[in-house]
Amino acid sequence: MEIIKGGVCAPKGFLASGIHCGIRKNKSKKDLALIYSQNRASCASVYTTNKVKGAPLTVTKNNIQDGYAQAVICNSGNANTCNANGIEIAEEMCQILGNELGIDAKDVVVASTGVIGQPLDIAPIKNGVPSLVKSLNNNGSKDAAEGIMTTDTRLKEIALSFQIGEKECKIGGIAKGSGMIHPNMATMLVFITTDCNISAKMLQKALSTDIQSTFNMVSVDGDTSTNDMVTILANGMAENEQIDSEGDDFDTFMKALNTLTINLCRKIAGDGEGATKLLECTVDGAKDEKNAKIIAKSVICSSLVKSAMFGSDANWGRVLCAIGYSGAEVDVNKVFVSFVSSKGEISVCENGAGVDFSEEIAKEILLEDEITIKIVLGDGNGQATAWGCDLTYDYVKINGDYRT
Amino acid sequence: MEIIKGGVCAPKGFLASGIHCGIRKNKSKKDLALIYSQNRASCASVYTTNKVKGAPLTVTKNNIQDGYAQAVICNSGNANTCNANGIEIAEEMCQILGNELGIDAKDVVVASTGVIGQPLDIAPIKNGVPSLVKSLNNNGSKDAAEGIMTTDTRLKEIALSFQIGEKECKIGGIAKGSGMIHPNMATMLVFITTDCNISAKMLQKALSTDIQSTFNMVSVDGDTSTNDMVTILANGMAENEQIDSEGDDFDTFMKALNTLTINLCRKIAGDGEGATKLLECTVDGAKDEKNAKIIAKSVICSSLVKSAMFGSDANWGRVLCAIGYSGAEVDVNKVFVSFVSSKGEISVCENGAGVDFSEEIAKEILLEDEITIKIVLGDGNGQATAWGCDLTYDYVKINGDYRT
Repeated sequence: MEIIKGGVCAPKGFLASGIHCGIRKNKSKKDLALIYSQNRASCASVYTTNKVKGAPLTVTKNNIQDGYAQAVICNSGNANTCNANGIEIAEEMCQILGNELGIDAKDVVVASTGVIGQPLDIAPIKNGVPSLVKSLNNNGSKDAAEGIMTTDTRLKEIALSFQIGEKECKIGGIAKGSGMIHPNMATMLVFITTDCNISAKMLQKALSTDIQSTFNMVSVDGDTSTNDMVTILANGMAENEQIDSEGDDFDTFMKALNTLTINLCRKIAGDGEGATKLLECTVDGAKDEKNAKIIAKSVICSSLVKSAMFGSDANWGRVLCAIGYSGAEVDVNKVFVSFVSSKGEISVCENGAGVDFSEEIAKEILLEDEITIKIVLGDGNGQATAWGCDLTYDYVKINGDYRT
Repeated sequence: MEIIKGGVCAPKGFLASGIHCGIRKNKSKKDLALIYSQNRASCASVYTTNKVKGAPLTVTKNNIQDGYAQAVICNSGNANTCNANGIEIAEEMCQILGNELGIDAKDVVVASTGVIGQPLDIAPIKNGVPSLVKSLNNNGSKDAAEGIMTTDTRLKEIALSFQIGEKECKIGGIAKGSGMIHPNMATMLVFITTDCNISAKMLQKALSTDIQSTFNMVSVDGDTSTNDMVTILANGMAENEQIDSEGDDFDTFMKALNTLTINLCRKIAGDGEGATKLLECTVDGAKDEKNAKIIAKSVICSSLVKSAMFGSDANWGRVLCAIGYSGAEVDVNKVFVSFVSSKGEISVCENGAGVDFSEEIAKEILLEDEITIKIVLGDGNGQATAWGCDLTYDYVKINGDYRT
């Protein structure tokens, strides 16, 4: 497996584009994105578990129930959620794009991200779609990635190549996500493309399995968005023998997908609203995977742990506290905690009690941009990793006046 | 029922004191508190559900299993939690106080609050107890309340008088709590005294019932502390006929207790770390009380709602979002939301969709110090109220370098 360039356009037969159409006032910020496959592709998707669901999710779910899609359209600046005419608008977006591309509106995946509860005006989208389609090209991944950004400060894309049998396959992805991020069963907006030949059924299986240990283990602020969605399109143009059951090829595909999604998870967490640090929490020796996940996520979600990390303060008592209230089955007298970064590792708690450590070395380790909170338990073989970020002044600033 | 002065010393036969003994470096901050009843009192207590529990909780639980206690000792500046010798130190605190007061060490309730995982030195406590006992007096509630404060900016005490039969009874309480507040089954540190004559069994029943709709509905930061505890002492000196079963007298006592605890809840939430506003979320028309509580707590805990309130931004979409991911059974198409303060009420969402409203009026309402987020559902008769505070720069500042 190898990291390659090109994002969602790296796999054969995928084009992308992104433009400013006028949903946002700021003309330098792209607000409409398109991904297009030259043929109908297998399509799988997972959605937020929030009961308040964005209208685009309902329309997408309906459109891809046959397992196929050919294009993804996504606007930023407005979530098209909690609006009386949301479904209508989302369907119209598919219709307008379908007409322009000459494909069935039912083969369009539609998504929206931005403020909740403000009517989404179809006019700028309608006016923008012709030039959006016209600018489709095989270097368009960055433009599309930019088109879906909201409070993100960094563009998020990645692509990998891998081998299935004799054939070289490619997989690429773009993501947005910075606040309101605490996915559950599905996640922020992530669009993945691959030219691997895989049945729609196995594609859905791969995605649904993968997200349990990737996007569902990310939290920026504990708020599960109404519009979270991960969609993958597989157009088969790599011409490998179709993956239609479990086996070595499926495992290889899963591994590529997992490498790609973990990369995007880290990008999303590290670019959390206001974040100055990427936090990773690894748990080993838990009773089982379920308990490991509960613990890792509890630590990564703790406002007190997040604030301590912002201050580069080795306040491990807060890590113990978050383990204790997580609800996981855990023997708190067998907890080991250490902090790890590129500067080294320092043990701060052994068997549930503090150990003498150098505050100076701890500070040096915690001043880095990527911190791992390493937890080792004595309860079994369960392992998990969760990703998050520190809690900073800027998170409050960004969210104190997001609408204005 | 009437609000009176005196805090925990308002009920007959209770004395209190608070001193600086040297656990904290800052000599102007009291760090040791004592509450004393002139006779052995019925005693009831509830504790944190965090699996990592402070040593003092274990010792207290053991001491009061007979249903009686006569004194409460509490230090601030160190939580005596996750220390190898924590139990030993907590027992020694009881022993030292018992000797000085001439009471059984088993009649002492012990509590600690502050940093987790740093050894608690018994020396300053040992040196301080004689003068702590010597300064006991019936105006000492404020000193005791000050002695248990950590990052609190405001002293929290309250007292009420009420009537049982012919007798006037009094109930008083002090509380600390500012961060790491998201109680579950028990809560922050709250000490309540009453001269009402009530059996230990009924006292525990009253307390355990009360906290479900009071302290358990408060959240400052979603972090359930390791040292949360609410303790009540009832010394019977009001000489009412003993309350030893349910009935009118028990109901009257419950009402007084509930009025007192709600007052303390509001004080704790309003003084949340860094808070500029007290937030109250009321839910009406939920399927049942359980679902109403889940929703109220989800909204009050949302970092995005809390940040919006800090910015006085009527971003009601975030309220809908928090209702949606709460896990409660709710028909999201029947949700009504309005914001209320002393400046009036403004409706922002009806039947799950936005309504036109004046941003100017909304801002005026939200600039106040006490905001109610009022949610009305169409699912049944369930009601609940939760309390919290806004998320501010200062929360991050306080918790970025709490230990230093």
